[in-house]
Amino acid sequence: MIKVAIVGASGYTGVELLRLLLNHPQVEITCVTSRQNAGSPICSVFPSLMGRTNLIFDPVDVDLVSSRAEVVFTALPHKAAMEVVPDLLDAGCKVIDLSADYRLKQAAVYEQWYQPHTSGELLAEAAYGLPELNREQIKNARLVANPGCYPTSVALALAPLIQEGLIELTSLIIDSKSGTSGAGRSAKLGSLYCEVNEGFKAYGVASHRHTPEIEQTLSQLAGQPVEVCFTPHLLPISRGILSTCYARLLENRSTGELVALYEEHYADEPFVRIHSEGDLPNVAYVRGSNYCNIGMVSDSRTGRVIVVSVIDNLLKGAASQAVQNMNLMLGLDEGCGLQDLPLFP
Amino acid sequence: MIKVAIVGASGYTGVELLRLLLNHPQVEITCVTSRQNAGSPICSVFPSLMGRTNLIFDPVDVDLVSSRAEVVFTALPHKAAMEVVPDLLDAGCKVIDLSADYRLKQAAVYEQWYQPHTSGELLAEAAYGLPELNREQIKNARLVANPGCYPTSVALALAPLIQEGLIELTSLIIDSKSGTSGAGRSAKLGSLYCEVNEGFKAYGVASHRHTPEIEQTLSQLAGQPVEVCFTPHLLPISRGILSTCYARLLENRSTGELVALYEEHYADEPFVRIHSEGDLPNVAYVRGSNYCNIGMVSDSRTGRVIVVSVIDNLLKGAASQAVQNMNLMLGLDEGCGLQDLPLFP
Amino acid sequence: MIKVAIVGASGYTGVELLRLLLNHPQVEITCVTSRQNAGSPICSVFPSLMGRTNLIFDPVDVDLVSSRAEVVFTALPHKAAMEVVPDLLDAGCKVIDLSADYRLKQAAVYEQWYQPHTSGELLAEAAYGLPELNREQIKNARLVANPGCYPTSVALALAPLIQEGLIELTSLIIDSKSGTSGAGRSAKLGSLYCEVNEGFKAYGVASHRHTPEIEQTLSQLAGQPVEVCFTPHLLPISRGILSTCYARLLENRSTGELVALYEEHYADEPFVRIHSEGDLPNVAYVRGSNYCNIGMVSDSRTGRVIVVSVIDNLLKGAASQAVQNMNLMLGLDEGCGLQDLPLFP
Amino acid sequence: MIKVAIVGASGYTGVELLRLLLNHPQVEITCVTSRQNAGSPICSVFPSLMGRTNLIFDPVDVDLVSSRAEVVFTALPHKAAMEVVPDLLDAGCKVIDLSADYRLKQAAVYEQWYQPHTSGELLAEAAYGLPELNREQIKNARLVANPGCYPTSVALALAPLIQEGLIELTSLIIDSKSGTSGAGRSAKLGSLYCEVNEGFKAYGVASHRHTPEIEQTLSQLAGQPVEVCFTPHLLPISRGILSTCYARLLENRSTGELVALYEEHYADEPFVRIHSEGDLPNVAYVRGSNYCNIGMVSDSRTGRVIVVSVIDNLLKGAASQAVQNMNLMLGLDEGCGLQDLPLFP
Repeated sequence: MIKVAIVGASGYTGVELLRLLLNHPQVEITCVTSRQNAGSPICSVFPSLMGRTNLIFDPVDVDLVSSRAEVVFTALPHKAAMEVVPDLLDAGCKVIDLSADYRLKQAAVYEQWYQPHTSGELLAEAAYGLPELNREQIKNARLVANPGCYPTSVALALAPLIQEGLIELTSLIIDSKSGTSGAGRSAKLGSLYCEVNEGFKAYGVASHRHTPEIEQTLSQLAGQPVEVCFTPHLLPISRGILSTCYARLLENRSTGELVALYEEHYADEPFVRIHSEGDLPNVAYVRGSNYCNIGMVSDSRTGRVIVVSVIDNLLKGAASQAVQNMNLMLGLDEGCGLQDLPLFP
Repeated sequence: MIKVAIVGASGYTGVELLRLLLNHPQVEITCVTSRQNAGSPICSVFPSLMGRTNLIFDPVDVDLVSSRAEVVFTALPHKAAMEVVPDLLDAGCKVIDLSADYRLKQAAVYEQWYQPHTSGELLAEAAYGLPELNREQIKNARLVANPGCYPTSVALALAPLIQEGLIELTSLIIDSKSGTSGAGRSAKLGSLYCEVNEGFKAYGVASHRHTPEIEQTLSQLAGQPVEVCFTPHLLPISRGILSTCYARLLENRSTGELVALYEEHYADEPFVRIHSEGDLPNVAYVRGSNYCNIGMVSDSRTGRVIVVSVIDNLLKGAASQAVQNMNLMLGLDEGCGLQDLPLFP
Repeated sequence: MIKVAIVGASGYTGVELLRLLLNHPQVEITCVTSRQNAGSPICSVFPSLMGRTNLIFDPVDVDLVSSRAEVVFTALPHKAAMEVVPDLLDAGCKVIDLSADYRLKQAAVYEQWYQPHTSGELLAEAAYGLPELNREQIKNARLVANPGCYPTSVALALAPLIQEGLIELTSLIIDSKSGTSGAGRSAKLGSLYCEVNEGFKAYGVASHRHTPEIEQTLSQLAGQPVEVCFTPHLLPISRGILSTCYARLLENRSTGELVALYEEHYADEPFVRIHSEGDLPNVAYVRGSNYCNIGMVSDSRTGRVIVVSVIDNLLKGAASQAVQNMNLMLGLDEGCGLQDLPLFP
Repeated sequence: MIKVAIVGASGYTGVELLRLLLNHPQVEITCVTSRQNAGSPICSVFPSLMGRTNLIFDPVDVDLVSSRAEVVFTALPHKAAMEVVPDLLDAGCKVIDLSADYRLKQAAVYEQWYQPHTSGELLAEAAYGLPELNREQIKNARLVANPGCYPTSVALALAPLIQEGLIELTSLIIDSKSGTSGAGRSAKLGSLYCEVNEGFKAYGVASHRHTPEIEQTLSQLAGQPVEVCFTPHLLPISRGILSTCYARLLENRSTGELVALYEEHYADEPFVRIHSEGDLPNVAYVRGSNYCNIGMVSDSRTGRVIVVSVIDNLLKGAASQAVQNMNLMLGLDEGCGLQDLPLFP
């Protein structure tokens, strides 16, 4: 059994990593840290895990973590992550970082959207952990930057169109909607039940920090700079992201032709499912799983294609994608421990 | 007291008309019809109204209705509406029709998206009941076509930009999200609690019947044909529509300039509220009221403006807008009976 | 117009008092305080009220409040209330206190469940503000203790049975369920959307602070001490309380007989609605209104009666009951400003 | 691989059986029937299963089913089940019936609460499929009657108290709350999203058909007839049951003593988890799993114990308990295929 640690496990991504790794047949969780819950049994913080682990939250201590684990998941906020990742690497651990700190290739771009970067030298090395686009690099990485939730939903939705050169790159509009677990488990007024329930709003319009990450990935796919107009919204559900992506087709393609293109593009991908013509995804179809479902419509009237993708923001958008990356890094079967079917209803 | 009737009052729009009109100081409800509930007390179908009315649902009978009421709200499905509206007009009633049957000016367009029209001769006469755009015509109408919920949210969001000629008309993308009451009160699998709850999906992509209505209004505002790419989504909330509208600005305008434009444009409108720069609407801010809230952001990076509008789909998107139209038709104060503040939380 | 103030108006009860009083025809809001939001426009904290008030939150200052208003609603947490109520009374204001501080008649009981009482001398004078049980005393009071939400739902559900001596007093079990707005608007982990949504739990079992208030009211009705087994639960809805009350009948009564008894008992009450035999209330039937709906079943197999009552916890359980009390204290029509019909769906 | 069939798989229990059995390492699904969906691919009805099965719904045909499978899950409504179960048994299949048809031991009681029984002779033979109470009989059964959801939650909550003789049997009151999936997947007005959302109600008061099943189990545990006052309620969540059970203690026991008793009683049970003193269950702690969590409080003031249990109504209350029963019948490890951890949030 491979020894793994989770650093910063008291949030919603943390409990999902725990849930997945406790059932993973090839690994053993040996260390779980939390600044705020250090000393508490994991099951007192997450009663859903009762009876399945006796682990206690440790304080965040790089030496402790690296002495106990070969692979470390860092599920910390950005900035906090880069305070521990270099030391974990130096201590010989493989690291899958779920923060934003190592996703952008250029420190300057990072610093424009976040704050100064203290280990910019690692950016070149870090593999961007979207297996469908970057599998080989991930396999050989010691540091994987696990993608953001919105960027995962958008990259998988648009990759075939961009790689095939079918769309006008300046026409991209991405209207995304995320469940509330994306806002994290900290006690903020805006995340209260009564503030979110029966409500719906846009936020971070023209300024969300996932924008440069989306643009970086799409630019790589296009081989030229791509800018997107990206608008996230807050859904009154616990989990799930749906991205509605709009682009002008350079020449007319029917919905059927586009579906066929996507089916071929993703034919070997175990976690991407393409909807038939006339059928579109619902976030409920992927809840609790590592799947990304994609559907599309060609709007011949306006010359546009509308691509809709859904993921579980805590899973393919965070924890299960991290486990998929771990499997690749360790040479395990890529889907090991990730076979849960979506929970419906 | 002016005598009013509601034809087809057993749906969600019907109960909202009942709620508003029972408290309206200038009218008296004298007749309420329902095919399926004829003979039942209204309060047995809608216990929320207990103690406030003893009315019984009548069968749908034009003679009965017109003998009892001067003003009639028809809250029937499209097609069913045009089977009664001409007779109600002939009997001398003023009619506010909440269906789609009299909203489109051209029978040919109607027939392309719906089915054959049996009283196309009334289309020219019918006033499109969006007071903010069409107040004078409504005042003199005997037939008002109450706008669709999505078209209301979109027309109010885009009117200032289009009238001022600030945007590229071919660039319009409208991503709308509606609460589930918009799907009506009929027992359909897709409207079941467990099918909708914790879910989110797009539907009617590139084919929703509100598209021609939106285009008709925007074309009138623009003075030239406008096509839109319109994508509705189903929100797991009971009421509320949020429309996120995207357009390319012909020349750069700051968010502040655009907010000022909207504030001026709607300065005299009692039911339109503009959010300050940095602030955006939430459907929860208008729940239970006749308000439309609008906010916007100018995305200088991509040269686009994003306008977000919210309404309560059952109120400004249906019942309270119908009462607003009635007030205008009867020469009453436009806001009479519509002063309810939004219910938050 | 009577001048009124709201002290501590930044919570959910506060915004409901604002909503009701802004539309009340006989009063004018002249002062609204909030420790945390002092200096901010009310509409920036509660955008639902945009366009309807220009008031700014003032700091909590008794002199300021009493110089501006004749009637004061104190919507503070317990303990904070008794720090201002005596001074407001001394300054000549009538006070409706929505906290728990003046509900219990005996300081010793208060101190057992809360903390030391600093103005116990006012307890005898304070009128318990449940109009259906205590109307005359309220009319003459200068201090009204507005009842708790659970106690209101329970007292109205059980008063007829207890006053008629139909039940075994030692057999009372009360299983209550409350919407999440009852937990207030402070940023606590347990009130986060993802902690509450799709969840349900009991809390405060055998220890909830509303227990002595319930027992005090039922004891007064019974003319002897009554103890109850009271279990509250947290519902994943924004508003509403449903209490399921169980008692052994001393002698057999049919459901029909009991319904008739309740109808007679509450025949003159404008805000209590009794369901017919075979019909039971839903919290959705009273949402947004001052109503309490009550239904019941006699279970002849087990010799028990089950009474179910529903209220909107923010309204009949707090804000609208406070306005009802104000109306009584001022000699206004009791239902003035409280005619909103429930919002369904 | 053991061949299994699911008869009547187009409801919510059906899709959960599919989800569990598709991932079960010892079985292969060979036949899935549905009257209404016969001929359709399973994945078109349940897109959550896309990519994991190519099965097509067959019509309900006993010969077909029994020719393809050794073990059959019948997930039909009551009455429809007894039309196929005898023939499946005659054909040599082992049957796990999820309907109510074989749960009650006495045909007369069944007929009082349901309708005439056409295979009453099987009632004596059928094993009541609650492994924690009846494991040995289940192992040897060819027909298992899978318990109802409410009865499962109640029996596990009360078994230790009743078996130890600690409570007054005439004092039992059970206040249960169920998620909406318990109402099934048929298109009924009362199950519509807008009817359930933001609502809460009691239903079937003193008349719910699970009452005799609860009483049968508790009577067997007590060795004497037990009657309960049982009140179910409808929760606005998709899945989960919480039962709050009230009983008078014959002699005083502290919460700690009772917790210790439960921990000992269920020490060897893999799917029952007991909460420590001061801690109580939430339906969210078991969502998506086969667990039953139980917590309790001794209310010394009123001499009662309050026991709270939670299960996922579709899993321990239906599908996963059926798989647990299958495992026992086939001599497999009891928890095989049931190791999913609860999904939180």
